[in-house]
Amino acid sequence: MITKPTLLLDEIKCKENINKMFSKAQFYGLDFRPHFKTHQSLEIGKWFKEKGVDKITVSSVTMAEYFAVDWNDITIAFPVNILEINKINALAEKINLNLLVESEGSIEFLSEKITSEIDVFIKIDVGYHRTGISPNEIQLIDKILQVIEGSQLINFSGFLGHAGQTYECKNKEEIRRVHKTSLEIMGKLKEKYKEQFPSLIISLGDTPSCSVAKNFTGVDEIRPGNFVFYDLTQNQIGSNDISQIAVALACPIVAVHKNRSEIIIYGGGVHLSKERLEGEEGTIFGRVVEKKKSGWGNPIPKMYVKSLSQEHGIISAPRDEIEKYKIGDYLLILPVHSCMVGNLMKDYCTLDGRMISKL
Amino acid sequence: MITKPTLLLDEIKCKENINKMFSKAQFYGLDFRPHFKTHQSLEIGKWFKEKGVDKITVSSVTMAEYFAVDWNDITIAFPVNILEINKINALAEKINLNLLVESEGSIEFLSEKITSEIDVFIKIDVGYHRTGISPNEIQLIDKILQVIEGSQLINFSGFLGHAGQTYECKNKEEIRRVHKTSLEIMGKLKEKYKEQFPSLIISLGDTPSCSVAKNFTGVDEIRPGNFVFYDLTQNQIGSNDISQIAVALACPIVAVHKNRSEIIIYGGGVHLSKERLEGEEGTIFGRVVEKKKSGWGNPIPKMYVKSLSQEHGIISAPRDEIEKYKIGDYLLILPVHSCMVGNLMKDYCTLDGRMISKL
Repeated sequence: MITKPTLLLDEIKCKENINKMFSKAQFYGLDFRPHFKTHQSLEIGKWFKEKGVDKITVSSVTMAEYFAVDWNDITIAFPVNILEINKINALAEKINLNLLVESEGSIEFLSEKITSEIDVFIKIDVGYHRTGISPNEIQLIDKILQVIEGSQLINFSGFLGHAGQTYECKNKEEIRRVHKTSLEIMGKLKEKYKEQFPSLIISLGDTPSCSVAKNFTGVDEIRPGNFVFYDLTQNQIGSNDISQIAVALACPIVAVHKNRSEIIIYGGGVHLSKERLEGEEGTIFGRVVEKKKSGWGNPIPKMYVKSLSQEHGIISAPRDEIEKYKIGDYLLILPVHSCMVGNLMKDYCTLDGRMISKL
Repeated sequence: MITKPTLLLDEIKCKENINKMFSKAQFYGLDFRPHFKTHQSLEIGKWFKEKGVDKITVSSVTMAEYFAVDWNDITIAFPVNILEINKINALAEKINLNLLVESEGSIEFLSEKITSEIDVFIKIDVGYHRTGISPNEIQLIDKILQVIEGSQLINFSGFLGHAGQTYECKNKEEIRRVHKTSLEIMGKLKEKYKEQFPSLIISLGDTPSCSVAKNFTGVDEIRPGNFVFYDLTQNQIGSNDISQIAVALACPIVAVHKNRSEIIIYGGGVHLSKERLEGEEGTIFGRVVEKKKSGWGNPIPKMYVKSLSQEHGIISAPRDEIEKYKIGDYLLILPVHSCMVGNLMKDYCTLDGRMISKL
């Protein structure tokens, strides 16, 4: 029974999302290394394992430690944080650990301090301009490769990119254009280095590209994460249908203000995060969906999270709709960004009331 | 030693903030019922207890349960969530519990279901328009009072307001104008009801008003929370000096991109929250401060958090400044909103390296 903000997980939708992406990877002959930063749950991880997935991506050493119980091949898709070298060495002793490097400083540090075998990807900036080496900086790439070649314990995996700029796209076509650029950049690097490193891998990651692209020429591995749940942001840019969103936050109604067409929920920034979306109604922080006998249906038109404070949310509701609600009911809210909501909540509750724990 | 994002707490600054607000309440003859939603820590709570504080405010039943170990008089400053009635009854049996009511539905529910004595505030909307009854709705107030009068277990505490609109103010004068309106609204209610309820309390809350107001006529109790740490938002609106901010997030540097004057830190939306501030540089998510032998000094001009993803932060740094940093260093970042950062982090680390646990 819902008594406070509870993150509901529609297991069927979630498994369908997993199946779809798994099948897509198979169809295009790609290795599938899903990013587990979105769900952060060993149990949800097992749903991937059942399909035959045997390697994963995470975004921190802490997450790698958590998942290392079940997974033997983990990429930490984050520029190596050299301050965590002790934990990295402990992990590398236990599992097949893949790290990301994008500077001489970090590869030199690793070559000095690493005590077990590791695999290293060189992070390439495919246009997002967050992390990674510009594909034109061949001199820097060669320097890093030289240090790798000189190390007994470090193997070169290949080049890894993340086209996070797809999150700024407006539609599928724009996403595909961004992805095409990633393919071109990575294709050139593969061409240049494949003789020297015949088994080098090209790894691409973002959920929008992996969801809508129809061409993966030259790509060896994909690492999408958000697709496991999807969300309103992904829906707005064209990655998923609204019906594929697999999580919704159940929030008790604590006040109804008909005079200003607003409902106050127990559900705030500490549950939904302050992640926002610019929609036709202005800035929104979530959308209210119809309750179904089991789970939820479509968004209720013009009913959305208008603002959030720490524990409160303000729902804007149409005048004819607001009459249906009273204190003690709860609303179901689709999140703007499921990764952030998943991170904030301590567990998931399936539609049949089973609790699923997470990191 | 810092190896990953760590929330540093300057105990001296924090205790000075507590002392200052405690003394101000004393000076104006106000009861001090600090809001503990910002720090959410039993240990920091003890610093208030040492001063003689004996009652607190929280924003959820969960927080009340956590603090009930040490505190015997707790106000849950949130419209009562009737779905948690069992936990409310368990709390009311143990401690002096104060709840907020703003509808007939909730007071009727309580009068039927409550099993121990409780005190109830009527929440008044002093202009923030989030929760509360409009001060003009005397009929509704009277109806609620009638139900309270008819109940054996419910006592009327008084009227409670929260002028959250002060967070939109631009300076001290604007805050004081908002506060003046709160005083007028609450003053009229007190005048109207004081014969019927001679011991009724007027309780006001927001940190901006409590920090800058010099007039508390008619007010009996204040409930500020954020002042314990303060933050960049409070600083921007004029509540605090930058030197009073008592928390900073230490974030390892994982990449330095001199060509675009950016530093990449391990520290993202899951640490700093996505709370933003519109400053002269545009939207920012935090400011970098100078490191001192112990703690931190002033913000470094033009060095700020430009964007955040889940675990990454991008720092914009001036060209002459960026030369000083390399991977493996860490930066200290003042948060935009300390309540949200406090909520996200699992503990605090004092400047001498002691860990302080929290909810």
